[in-house]
Amino acid sequence: MASLNTRLTRQLDLQIPLLSAPMAFASGGALAAAVSRAGGLGLIGGGYGDALWIDEQFAAAAGARVGVGFITWSLSQSPALLTRALVHRPVAVMLSFGDPRPFADEIHAAGARLVCQCQNLGHVRDALEAKANIVVAQGAEAGGHGALRGTLSWVPEAADSIAARAPDTLLLAAGGIADGRGMAAALMLGADGVLVGTRLWASQEALVPPRHHQAILATDGDGTVRTTAADVVRQLDWPRGFTARIRRNAFVERWHGREAELQRQLAIEAPRYRQAAAAGDPEDTAVWFGEAAGLIRAIEPAAAIVQRMADEAVAQMRRVGAVVMA
Amino acid sequence: MASLNTRLTRQLDLQIPLLSAPMAFASGGALAAAVSRAGGLGLIGGGYGDALWIDEQFAAAAGARVGVGFITWSLSQSPALLTRALVHRPVAVMLSFGDPRPFADEIHAAGARLVCQCQNLGHVRDALEAKANIVVAQGAEAGGHGALRGTLSWVPEAADSIAARAPDTLLLAAGGIADGRGMAAALMLGADGVLVGTRLWASQEALVPPRHHQAILATDGDGTVRTTAADVVRQLDWPRGFTARIRRNAFVERWHGREAELQRQLAIEAPRYRQAAAAGDPEDTAVWFGEAAGLIRAIEPAAAIVQRMADEAVAQMRRVGAVVMA
Repeated sequence: MASLNTRLTRQLDLQIPLLSAPMAFASGGALAAAVSRAGGLGLIGGGYGDALWIDEQFAAAAGARVGVGFITWSLSQSPALLTRALVHRPVAVMLSFGDPRPFADEIHAAGARLVCQCQNLGHVRDALEAKANIVVAQGAEAGGHGALRGTLSWVPEAADSIAARAPDTLLLAAGGIADGRGMAAALMLGADGVLVGTRLWASQEALVPPRHHQAILATDGDGTVRTTAADVVRQLDWPRGFTARIRRNAFVERWHGREAELQRQLAIEAPRYRQAAAAGDPEDTAVWFGEAAGLIRAIEPAAAIVQRMADEAVAQMRRVGAVVMA
Repeated sequence: MASLNTRLTRQLDLQIPLLSAPMAFASGGALAAAVSRAGGLGLIGGGYGDALWIDEQFAAAAGARVGVGFITWSLSQSPALLTRALVHRPVAVMLSFGDPRPFADEIHAAGARLVCQCQNLGHVRDALEAKANIVVAQGAEAGGHGALRGTLSWVPEAADSIAARAPDTLLLAAGGIADGRGMAAALMLGADGVLVGTRLWASQEALVPPRHHQAILATDGDGTVRTTAADVVRQLDWPRGFTARIRRNAFVERWHGREAELQRQLAIEAPRYRQAAAAGDPEDTAVWFGEAAGLIRAIEPAAAIVQRMADEAVAQMRRVGAVVMA
């Protein structure tokens, strides 16, 4: 098994510089534990804050060294959830989509690493003010919520910003990274490691309905879109500027670009959406994956995915280096 | 000076696996020649088809080995332009934004390489049917016209598609590549080289008004947007699905998202836009650069840019390889 040494692996005592994304609903304790046992660090998805579910997922991680992630604007509405999660002694707490500063002291005091996911330079400034241990520069390729910057230029720009202000802060790349080529590219861009969502959403341990898993295997990277339709129908009050990348399916065809009309039809459409979601239907509800769908050919155990990504990254760096610098 | 060997450098007899983007209006003969003399291959921007201008730019290249690029849907409206450009014996002809197949035979017969820029898998299929020698996988980070896929996941997916159908076809990455980190990342993603726009738009040889050059130095990577407003005001009939990434300026603030209203105001707004463009104003006209703006600190000679990118790419591959695989 390949081992990759970066500042991230040394500081967090990992074998592979990879964190799994704390995907709401999909990233349970089994996935987080599998990623950690494979040499990375798994994060449980705190999502919109179901305390009981989070407790259950830490239990499901069965003693593995894992972290947890929250949707920051949602956590602001029930901040006690953070205190409760810290009882489980997570290795890291990741905050995405909102101001991390109000939560930083509590996380640092608990001895957890503060990981801040950032979609623009303003977010990076907030993260450094919060004394984040790790910044995640997330690009628009990512599945689920995010914003508009492309990973390839955003990661080096974030790296420059961090180098100028707080060079000991680590940097992870996120968005579109699903194999060893993407991992090797992220390291070249100046990242200390990667945060992987979509590729691990397509793992056996992810809490994803079987027909959603079948859908990703049938979808190429052109088959997703960034939209607010899924937030409108779920009546979730996401801050302006964030959209969610989901599969282009019947729901998207019907409502993407017609969000005002969807808002007016909520009495009918919200229950319809919930029912489809509960039934694991892949057409009349959102299916949460990113552009990396086009690089995924099978639903596999998370450990196999993580280890293959590392093996491929090492092989790619060797192969390209040997050819290119010959 | 670093030299990088890939299939691209070997087949096109280059020292550096880099082509300059044939940016409409900005990529004249002086820029193309400077890029070629620095070890890459420069492309003159055929744009919307001003035959006299193209002749002049080939003359300005003063015998350097250069290529030319066209906006394919525009070329379809005046196909004789291709015949005329081929008289100058370009090394390569790049076609972007439209079906390349009607032009392929004439280009191949003239002994020029056919380069097809692709924004999705359908475009790659068309390019391979046209027997393209080189496919450019262009990501949404790019300045100017393009589409929605992020470079980081699009390049490896294009690489897989090409490997399965026509493995001898070369692949370039475009979109967001402005330094050696991006170049090294592109090679890790499976590209044989890179196509560089924005970074060379910000060169001394580019045909860009001084205040537009000042604007890019004052803009970070968050300061651009994809829009159709510039095409609406110029009354250019771009095919559906393509937008242009430009600087967020007064023009964009006024009209992005209000394109239907702009259409109604053309009698006033079109002359206003043209006047601002002619005056080199950076606010009331489109300013054509991409997210890589955040990685650019100076307007420099093209040769210095190209050679530094290669030096940095080699250094980054050595540095990361040594640290990571230790």
